[in-house]
Amino acid sequence: MAQRHHDLTDPAAGPLTTGDALAGYLRGQATEFLRALRLHRETGGAASNGSAGAPAGSSAAGAAGAAASSAQARLDAARALRRSARRISGSLHTFRPLLEPEWSEGIRPELAWLSGTLALEHAYGARLERLLLALNRLSGPAPVPPQPAGPAGPGGGARAAAHPAVPDRGNLTVGAAKAGALLDRQLTLARTRAHSTALQALGSSRFHAVADKVAVLASEVPLTATAPATDLRPLAMAAADRLADAVAALPLVTAGSPYNAEALIHGLSPDPAPHPQDAPWHQVRLLLRLHRYACEVVHGRGTPLEIRLLSAGEALDRHRDASEASSAAAQAARTPRIAPATAYALGVLHADQRHEVEAARYAFQRSWQKQTVAAP
Amino acid sequence: MAQRHHDLTDPAAGPLTTGDALAGYLRGQATEFLRALRLHRETGGAASNGSAGAPAGSSAAGAAGAAASSAQARLDAARALRRSARRISGSLHTFRPLLEPEWSEGIRPELAWLSGTLALEHAYGARLERLLLALNRLSGPAPVPPQPAGPAGPGGGARAAAHPAVPDRGNLTVGAAKAGALLDRQLTLARTRAHSTALQALGSSRFHAVADKVAVLASEVPLTATAPATDLRPLAMAAADRLADAVAALPLVTAGSPYNAEALIHGLSPDPAPHPQDAPWHQVRLLLRLHRYACEVVHGRGTPLEIRLLSAGEALDRHRDASEASSAAAQAARTPRIAPATAYALGVLHADQRHEVEAARYAFQRSWQKQTVAAP
Repeated sequence: MAQRHHDLTDPAAGPLTTGDALAGYLRGQATEFLRALRLHRETGGAASNGSAGAPAGSSAAGAAGAAASSAQARLDAARALRRSARRISGSLHTFRPLLEPEWSEGIRPELAWLSGTLALEHAYGARLERLLLALNRLSGPAPVPPQPAGPAGPGGGARAAAHPAVPDRGNLTVGAAKAGALLDRQLTLARTRAHSTALQALGSSRFHAVADKVAVLASEVPLTATAPATDLRPLAMAAADRLADAVAALPLVTAGSPYNAEALIHGLSPDPAPHPQDAPWHQVRLLLRLHRYACEVVHGRGTPLEIRLLSAGEALDRHRDASEASSAAAQAARTPRIAPATAYALGVLHADQRHEVEAARYAFQRSWQKQTVAAP
Repeated sequence: MAQRHHDLTDPAAGPLTTGDALAGYLRGQATEFLRALRLHRETGGAASNGSAGAPAGSSAAGAAGAAASSAQARLDAARALRRSARRISGSLHTFRPLLEPEWSEGIRPELAWLSGTLALEHAYGARLERLLLALNRLSGPAPVPPQPAGPAGPGGGARAAAHPAVPDRGNLTVGAAKAGALLDRQLTLARTRAHSTALQALGSSRFHAVADKVAVLASEVPLTATAPATDLRPLAMAAADRLADAVAALPLVTAGSPYNAEALIHGLSPDPAPHPQDAPWHQVRLLLRLHRYACEVVHGRGTPLEIRLLSAGEALDRHRDASEASSAAAQAARTPRIAPATAYALGVLHADQRHEVEAARYAFQRSWQKQTVAAP
């Protein structure tokens, strides 16, 4: 990739960085991991008492606020756990040749399992919130509420705590309201299950083995004998190249042409699987993350990431979220015995989220283009 | 409107044009009207025999081609009739002060009735074709047909004649196929009714009174006494001003920002009426047409219209078509006792067409912007 230096944050810029820096980075991430794990336990993540066992919203209005804030603290701790797990796993991948192969090949799938398991509860909650917000948006502006300002209506407190951004549903049609209730039921159930699964995972011997390995990593990184003095930059540049190659294979010309109507093209396809056209974008999202982590290792964690890489990453996050939300709407429409009005609302919602997918691709193309054009 | 000369094709450019030119234009349009009327009668438009009484596609494969080509000739003649009726009516409106008020106020609603009545058959056919094409597009690429090249499959001939651009439906899901069949039924019925109504209208005494008036217009235009020497340009400029004012009131900043998700915002609104947000765009479409006709009167019919006005007009036509198609999909979804899969497909289709509405607004904004920026 001769264009590399013009296209991406250059991992080879700045002073020589060697395996020692990698060891420092991994020790730092392992420490963060252990801190997040302690926080998660303190917020009830590992216990199986009532308020932590069920997501916030099921208790009475008074306790709901406390439960919600404890649930939020627990989700924040889980996010911090995932964050460092991803960084450890990603760095082990990018700088593979510098690490004892047996050790690093052993821990990577375990870290992936852990962050995947912890991610689900948050993902289902966020998906539900995204879909309910979209349903409200699609129903037009909400009418002026009949009652004057004051405390939320019956049950409003718990709902507001769980979905703070979701407005009143007073303006929904029957179809939209039923679609919302169906999605709420399905995704809340999925979230509750994901929560139980995560609790089980965190209490398992499999998890304790990972935590032990990370605890070792916090003090002693298993580098190969030559690694401490080896230049990290060629490996970081290889990660940048993999990203650039994957981006080059995306249909960016189409994505950069507004309203190309490409994302919905399989909207009524008989195939119930997620859209195959989304996969290369999801792949770029992962490669962009690996590139970011490699830059963190080489340049140090405090280095502000270039704004264009951040906005490209945000566009790909939005792409993934909209893609999964559109699948959830399509999936809900396959529920037996739903009313035609519910199915209609889910069809509109599915298409709306596919438009979001297309909009996210457009946004990515714009960030990426800016990047290439702005280079000297 | 001080900006007028920079924003629009300037009706005041070029040599002085007076009421004499208006009389010539109206005579020309009246002659076109009478010619189209004769053509329409020759192609069976006024007769009520079988092949003209029902839209093409219902007869056997052999006769279908001939029936379709005769139906096409009839629709072409009806389009030519509407075309001159609109131009006569529009010019009478724009240059009202130059014409005998009683006469021109009397004929304008009659011309509007006529072109409205004649437009419906074509509109329903085009709407169905647009929706069936969208259903096919939304179902992903069609699978490779199993049989080698050759004549169309069973029944394919008649369907291909009626909807030449609609591909095979082999790749549709049950929901999409059922939605297509439902729309086909409803819009074909509406088209057949519109056809009968148009035939009745063309045989009515009301129509004969209009035709007689237009026949008089072809030889003698009822100008006021001072009109022949009156400058047409101030009235043409007033039409341009009305257009510019209506465009200035459109939400063009939003429309110019791709993927603003504005067009679908009432997609699930409880209000079954057409989207109120579309009305100002429809109004601009009519004013743009009046401006075009005024330019034709002032500059002569052979003058090539500026490409930007043409593309702006095409965007507004597309806006109107997509808006009406989205309403037809929403309307079909209210049919009692449809399957949820059908309703789901109609929801996706509705949202797809609202997306088209948004795309058309974007295209209009781009044409219009280009226009303003390109001016000296």
